[in-house]
Amino acid sequence: MSDAVTGDEMMTIIAFSGDLDKMWPTTILASTAAANGMDVTVFATFWGLFPLVRDGEKIGHDAMTKMLAGMNPPGFTKSKLSKMNMAGMGRSMMRKVAAKSNLMPPEDLFEMCLDMGVKVWPCQMTMDLLGIRADQMLPGLGEPAGAATALARMSKSEINLFI
Amino acid sequence: MSDAVTGDEMMTIIAFSGDLDKMWPTTILASTAAANGMDVTVFATFWGLFPLVRDGEKIGHDAMTKMLAGMNPPGFTKSKLSKMNMAGMGRSMMRKVAAKSNLMPPEDLFEMCLDMGVKVWPCQMTMDLLGIRADQMLPGLGEPAGAATALARMSKSEINLFI
Amino acid sequence: MSDAVTGDEMMTIIAFSGDLDKMWPTTILASTAAANGMDVTVFATFWGLFPLVRDGEKIGHDAMTKMLAGMNPPGFTKSKLSKMNMAGMGRSMMRKVAAKSNLMPPEDLFEMCLDMGVKVWPCQMTMDLLGIRADQMLPGLGEPAGAATALARMSKSEINLFI
Repeated sequence: MSDAVTGDEMMTIIAFSGDLDKMWPTTILASTAAANGMDVTVFATFWGLFPLVRDGEKIGHDAMTKMLAGMNPPGFTKSKLSKMNMAGMGRSMMRKVAAKSNLMPPEDLFEMCLDMGVKVWPCQMTMDLLGIRADQMLPGLGEPAGAATALARMSKSEINLFI
Repeated sequence: MSDAVTGDEMMTIIAFSGDLDKMWPTTILASTAAANGMDVTVFATFWGLFPLVRDGEKIGHDAMTKMLAGMNPPGFTKSKLSKMNMAGMGRSMMRKVAAKSNLMPPEDLFEMCLDMGVKVWPCQMTMDLLGIRADQMLPGLGEPAGAATALARMSKSEINLFI
Repeated sequence: MSDAVTGDEMMTIIAFSGDLDKMWPTTILASTAAANGMDVTVFATFWGLFPLVRDGEKIGHDAMTKMLAGMNPPGFTKSKLSKMNMAGMGRSMMRKVAAKSNLMPPEDLFEMCLDMGVKVWPCQMTMDLLGIRADQMLPGLGEPAGAATALARMSKSEINLFI
């Protein structure tokens, strides 16, 4: 095996979790793959859609979805650790640890992904479910897509990951 | 790249978590893939086996496994969210949000998967470990299988996901 | 489809979580695949690096990373369940359930993986981030690697899983 990406490979990541610590592998793998010439798609679904909402946007189309958004505030900077969150203490500490080690925060890595041509497809069904409009999401995303479109892409991809 | 599944592809999902919110991507991806002609297998293992136990079945072969089942009740309708469960409040709200948005509950999507020919293989090792008998599980499942069988299937599949 | 691994396939697992219950699928799939002749690599990153630290090692290069390690003690035997941990009760019970069912503990399965030729690559970036030195990790691991190396390997692998 040669230890190099040849450049015509495809990678598709299903970004499901939205947790701060899982946004790192998603954005690091996506940007590194794109930097090596791979054709990369991130299909953002369920909790994974929350970080992609612009800061300060109020999402939800009724009382229940608004309450859900209240408990799980949208925006990259609001995302929590999957464990040890401890009322935000773990999150804040993890961000400081990362900064000290010159690891970019996920929101900057995400912007770099977009700059490098990574396609980010928000899941249409989740948007309908949670009451998120396209204009409430970060700029630079692709058209909302469904599971069939994501599956078609994955069936052509050398690397598929559910994160 | 053509944006279509050609119909002779295979997908294998390792359903590990059993959480309510993760049963949605598992069943949505599996049923959508099958509807597009893909050959789909779900290998249900560890916590992922709990939703597949019939409602009301008592599982466990000794005091410890019975206690484990008591803390993590089997059956689709008992499955919890991976976060924000808040003593069942998040789960119940998420189910209501889904119903309002015409998103089928996972147990109905699961039945649809079986109707559409998705193969569901319960993990033999987990059944032995947790004391779950084949006759305690939902009808329509495939024969219990081991890791080697799942790996053989995955090595032939265009899409492999660990959920 | 023939139900057999032909022996020249590759599998790459990104071991991200480090939770006790997720070390089982990682080590069971890796050792079973290797036993069937597959070429297997485990890229251990983020929380997934903690179990690979030798028992008793003090990790962390400053107050914050030391505190992080204090909250998430390194070493296989310290790893917790992803749910129902209940101050260690669930973990201890799950280990007893496994022992009674003759399921090897993950640390023994991990040693078996190494014996069978599974390559384990610690993530260089995580080591820098969390202050873990190569000499603090279990013997038998491969050279620390980065995301580009892991991606090159994954682009050649029939099976890629994020666990």
